[in-house]
Amino acid sequence: MKPVKVGLLGLGTVGGGTVNVLKRNSDEISRRAGRQISVVKASTRDLSRERICDIQGIQLVTDPFDVVSDSEIDIVVELIGGETLSKQLVVTAIENGKHVVTANKALIALHGNEIFELASSKGVMVAFEAAVAGGIPIIKAIREGLTGNQVKWLAGIINGTGNFILTEMRDKGRDFADVLAEAQSLGYAEADPTFDVEGIDAAHKLTILAAIAFGIPLQFDRVYTEGITGITQDDVGYAEELGYRIKHLGIARKNSVGIELRVHPTLIPERRLIANVDGVKNAVLVQGDAVGPTLYYGAGAGSEPTASAVVADIVDVVRTMTSDPENRVPHLAFQPDLLHDTPVCGINDIHTAYYLRLTAEDKPGVLADVTRILASHSISIEAIIQKESIEGDLNLPVIILTHSVFEREMNAAIHEIENLSSIEGQVHRIRMETLG
Amino acid sequence: MKPVKVGLLGLGTVGGGTVNVLKRNSDEISRRAGRQISVVKASTRDLSRERICDIQGIQLVTDPFDVVSDSEIDIVVELIGGETLSKQLVVTAIENGKHVVTANKALIALHGNEIFELASSKGVMVAFEAAVAGGIPIIKAIREGLTGNQVKWLAGIINGTGNFILTEMRDKGRDFADVLAEAQSLGYAEADPTFDVEGIDAAHKLTILAAIAFGIPLQFDRVYTEGITGITQDDVGYAEELGYRIKHLGIARKNSVGIELRVHPTLIPERRLIANVDGVKNAVLVQGDAVGPTLYYGAGAGSEPTASAVVADIVDVVRTMTSDPENRVPHLAFQPDLLHDTPVCGINDIHTAYYLRLTAEDKPGVLADVTRILASHSISIEAIIQKESIEGDLNLPVIILTHSVFEREMNAAIHEIENLSSIEGQVHRIRMETLG
Repeated sequence: MKPVKVGLLGLGTVGGGTVNVLKRNSDEISRRAGRQISVVKASTRDLSRERICDIQGIQLVTDPFDVVSDSEIDIVVELIGGETLSKQLVVTAIENGKHVVTANKALIALHGNEIFELASSKGVMVAFEAAVAGGIPIIKAIREGLTGNQVKWLAGIINGTGNFILTEMRDKGRDFADVLAEAQSLGYAEADPTFDVEGIDAAHKLTILAAIAFGIPLQFDRVYTEGITGITQDDVGYAEELGYRIKHLGIARKNSVGIELRVHPTLIPERRLIANVDGVKNAVLVQGDAVGPTLYYGAGAGSEPTASAVVADIVDVVRTMTSDPENRVPHLAFQPDLLHDTPVCGINDIHTAYYLRLTAEDKPGVLADVTRILASHSISIEAIIQKESIEGDLNLPVIILTHSVFEREMNAAIHEIENLSSIEGQVHRIRMETLG
Repeated sequence: MKPVKVGLLGLGTVGGGTVNVLKRNSDEISRRAGRQISVVKASTRDLSRERICDIQGIQLVTDPFDVVSDSEIDIVVELIGGETLSKQLVVTAIENGKHVVTANKALIALHGNEIFELASSKGVMVAFEAAVAGGIPIIKAIREGLTGNQVKWLAGIINGTGNFILTEMRDKGRDFADVLAEAQSLGYAEADPTFDVEGIDAAHKLTILAAIAFGIPLQFDRVYTEGITGITQDDVGYAEELGYRIKHLGIARKNSVGIELRVHPTLIPERRLIANVDGVKNAVLVQGDAVGPTLYYGAGAGSEPTASAVVADIVDVVRTMTSDPENRVPHLAFQPDLLHDTPVCGINDIHTAYYLRLTAEDKPGVLADVTRILASHSISIEAIIQKESIEGDLNLPVIILTHSVFEREMNAAIHEIENLSSIEGQVHRIRMETLG
């Protein structure tokens, strides 16, 4: 069969990695795919820039529209990121009848519904394995590997930078700001780390995972998102003392009200496998009703790990280019006319357990007041630690772990606790999941 | 589209689970697959037996050939196990133009080459996700998710019974025989546990994993297989003291000579994620040149976890029934005419590190003799522990961890050590892998 011709948009870290993998492993890849896959054209902002890949045989152009309108090209691979120009390019590629592979989570999370509809109408595929958890084939696992299941919930470490920071804070007792600075110097974190540490990047990925797990449209604007900037060394230490680790998780779960979509720091039991996923690695834990828990672990970013997912998508597209569109795996796992409009819960309607850290005056009766308030909201306590006060300080930290409750009940209880005259400042809360 | 009609061979634990999952999740499954999937006929040895599933709408027959020759049936699901009758049935089903889904690892490991050739000639598919690691979509991950990679090696906990036994030995300090008896009473182990504890079941699965990872034919008879019956409580304890866990692994690796295929107890560093996979769970760690390490974890057996994989295969088959066979995912991941005849190494040609336990006389110079012998075979020592002798015993245990070496060198060294007059009995060896 004739070679498949690929055009790249972007020839930086992931684009260069994709060229490297396709060239180095061309024998293995064509032994699998049954035909050659060749990158014939790539767009780049700067033609003279130094490359991480060999560009022999690839025509470089500065105008990315040159790629999406090239009649020779079968598959366009979008690796420029962002959501404005990338969207125009992807839409144009689809309109020109080209299949698209993209690593762009923001593009899919924000504009996927529209893009997939257009792609379906044009009979082309848009593949996006590389958009979530880098090289881990998590989209494929959920969309094709677990088709027999009702997904109950999923929870993922889907931002490597955040996981690196929390791992360093625990392993080495370092502070957030200190580790963030190191992550930036190592290239794990961007100069503007907001997307990573505030959870926006994770929220993009969670949006995609939830859609394919539950058969709902992409709804990025409904994800509750909380970053890790408020996590202190004290919290990390207390959690450890209680047998927990703090991880920045993206969680999607069906409850009695609707679907919870939330990204926030989370205490999880240290014996869980996912609690031991450290450094920049990613992992996603999926609970299916038939299979039970399954976990997928690997590199969530980087040149060749991401390229690994891009190439897998290219091979998938190659295999189904000639098949009838109605028998292809649907973009969002479920047939597009059979998506459900299950409501996404507001944060007040989520149901979870909590770690609470408060600062109390060192005098009798304070704990009695706090526990009375929790009981009045039907909140059961799993554990409580009252720390020694530090010499000369009249206040002492109190740590409380609760059982699960609707967040609105917890909000009301926290409000009352903060109004106690014996409680100093705010109650610091971190949500807690057993993932059991 | 009209419903797809499925015929089951066997209606026991996995067959019943498959019916339960297909019925309970029929809405979710058809929302994904785009059509209904119905079990219309099932063969069973005893029509009056109590069932774990609702059999309404399913015609029960005692003759399994009734199923494979039924012209109404599109997909035959083989769940009777064994390799004689099951092979006849699968071959007949294929000859009758039916697609086949099977959970039968022995059948695929021993007769897969022949079965896949026949299936290709008839233009049908034989899917076998459930044959390895139960509900974990590991076949899909390697065969489709990692197509961009050269697989360097893989290592899996692929027998739940063995992992349960080793976990209990470590967690509770129990002896092998004691835990095995419990595993049998819990139904984790068969009355004849040979297949599990001697590694034969794991060798079947490793055969399949290695074929799809490296693009080689299935070669069960080339797998070196060693069970866990020789692991003592002492070994588990010494390993822990040195920062290692003992796991029963299936390992496939490309080395400079060929491909290593081996199942044996293995020391692995306790910080590795796979070292923390406990109880009956399975996990497979795959090292790709582009993606790096990825790990897949979940239930390796059981009614509904296995059914989860069976149903995923059914949906996959449904999706590609109408596509041209040449564009389907090849049975063994690589195009059948492009498999390689890379030699499989004999056990003497594997390259690994070792844990050695010897019993030495408590007198000066013994360690010097042992270390001299190792050095003469260019075997470097990573750690050495000499335990106190037990009161009244003139012998003491010595534990040595070595760096990697070809097994033939280690055999020669062990032979010389055993010939030392100061060494009592045999040198007990367990292979050791860093999996780094």
